[in-house]
Amino acid sequence: MTMDSPIPLAIVGVGKIARDQHLPSISRTPAFALRAAVSRNAEVDGVQNFTDIEACLAARPDVKAVALCLPPEPRFAAAITALEAGCHVLLEKPPGATLGETDVLADLAREKGVTIFATWHSRFAPAVQPAKAFLADRAIRKVTITWREDVRRWHPGQGWVWEPAGFGVFDPGINALSILTEILPDEALLRAARLEVPENAATPIGVTMTMGIAGGGYEIDADFDWRQEGPQTWEIAAETDGGLMSLTGGGKTMAVDGKVVSDEPEAEYDGIYKRFADLIEAGESDMDMRPLRLVADACLLGRRVAVEPFHE
Amino acid sequence: MTMDSPIPLAIVGVGKIARDQHLPSISRTPAFALRAAVSRNAEVDGVQNFTDIEACLAARPDVKAVALCLPPEPRFAAAITALEAGCHVLLEKPPGATLGETDVLADLAREKGVTIFATWHSRFAPAVQPAKAFLADRAIRKVTITWREDVRRWHPGQGWVWEPAGFGVFDPGINALSILTEILPDEALLRAARLEVPENAATPIGVTMTMGIAGGGYEIDADFDWRQEGPQTWEIAAETDGGLMSLTGGGKTMAVDGKVVSDEPEAEYDGIYKRFADLIEAGESDMDMRPLRLVADACLLGRRVAVEPFHE
Repeated sequence: MTMDSPIPLAIVGVGKIARDQHLPSISRTPAFALRAAVSRNAEVDGVQNFTDIEACLAARPDVKAVALCLPPEPRFAAAITALEAGCHVLLEKPPGATLGETDVLADLAREKGVTIFATWHSRFAPAVQPAKAFLADRAIRKVTITWREDVRRWHPGQGWVWEPAGFGVFDPGINALSILTEILPDEALLRAARLEVPENAATPIGVTMTMGIAGGGYEIDADFDWRQEGPQTWEIAAETDGGLMSLTGGGKTMAVDGKVVSDEPEAEYDGIYKRFADLIEAGESDMDMRPLRLVADACLLGRRVAVEPFHE
Repeated sequence: MTMDSPIPLAIVGVGKIARDQHLPSISRTPAFALRAAVSRNAEVDGVQNFTDIEACLAARPDVKAVALCLPPEPRFAAAITALEAGCHVLLEKPPGATLGETDVLADLAREKGVTIFATWHSRFAPAVQPAKAFLADRAIRKVTITWREDVRRWHPGQGWVWEPAGFGVFDPGINALSILTEILPDEALLRAARLEVPENAATPIGVTMTMGIAGGGYEIDADFDWRQEGPQTWEIAAETDGGLMSLTGGGKTMAVDGKVVSDEPEAEYDGIYKRFADLIEAGESDMDMRPLRLVADACLLGRRVAVEPFHE
């Protein structure tokens, strides 16, 4: 691949995230050229449209990369199809409905000699790398994650978030865990979790997780909540020997002892497509499952508590 | 290592499983020589006894391998201590309270250049390898796991099995999953699960899991139940183009279309220590987390249903 010959790409799943984020970022990334779109009931202007991925890949053997923006459950079969056809694959988050699936995909990509990239968009927020650089040199004493938003505002009418594969409040919470596992110099290990599950739901509306590191150096507390009205909070704070580092706005702004040291415009999906191109160029994959594994460990080890039914 | 110079071994955790299984098997395995035991309140005759692993490894630098027979929660810190001291480590099942821990241990063993072995004792049942060989050549149509036992008989007075880290009926069920992942030529992937949790417990008393394989060739159904009185059932059956293969008695007996083709005496822990010696000799590790990952996936994706309280 050179910049002179962009990689022909197909997008699969043309919903809100595809229109708001993927399509604009693809058009701004010179390494890719959108050639086809796959959707059961939507179309993308200016490219060939299909209703299923098999038909798309059969008709367009020029397509060499596929961005999968489907929900986790149908995504697995689509990823198998794309990898079997020898395409590089980009997965929206979460990368699968189970950990088992993600291992099968990583193995198949290796066997086929193609790139697979499990994206965690929050890792591409502008202050994440500055926060990582700050923590690399510091003695950490305590980390606190506060991720509180209003499910009625962000998932109106989306009953699937309360079904088993919908992850509940882990859907936003996994964004925090994807930042945590990126910026922390140590591996975060789950010690205990409490899952508050509405009586009429299968997934939690509130979660607290207590994590530690091997050797027990410091504690990491996480608080995910979907019942927050008014201002929304997406913050990670770390007490260190170099001051209190806070990452706010979901990774947009970094401050130390209250003084802002990084606050750049958001460009998460441009960063994702840049990284996808770099991985393909290098012949590498990126399937970091630590955020999903922490969620699975919280479900494995966590204590569930029934709370009042949720009604929209 | 040669057979002339057995590997000096310490056993950590001297409870029922250590006395019933580990100590007799160690004494029958010429590759190991027991040199020390660690327990807060028990002693092993004929070797030096300690109450903590740090003191043991400090006093006995000749010890080169450690068998950890502690419950999952204290086991992690003990494993870190043993690996840091440069010892080879054998882990009783389950290998950790979380998946995150097991990755940290695997990485540390690699860094230290020592062997780590996550044992799944049921894999060493005598008919498991014959079953694996049978399935390797056959077209599989359906697999059914029935693992039903009486918790009152096998865990009398053990309240910890109902606590989050106790796994509930997954404690026996993971034995079935360890056999399944060993004998099946394909990767089993969780599709759905139903967890029946007593109102007064944190862990399930009954679980059904529906699994499949990539591509959807056949289904695997599992039924784990702790409410079975009378005869106990530990069976895996596979419908194939070569007949109905059944593995009964937890892997002891294999039959095809009702005719017994393998039925040897049980020797699971002798097999475990033989394999531990072979891994050390080869400079390799065996940390197959697929059984634990299937349990984590069932907790992640499963639907929980409250059932009547359990009283012993």
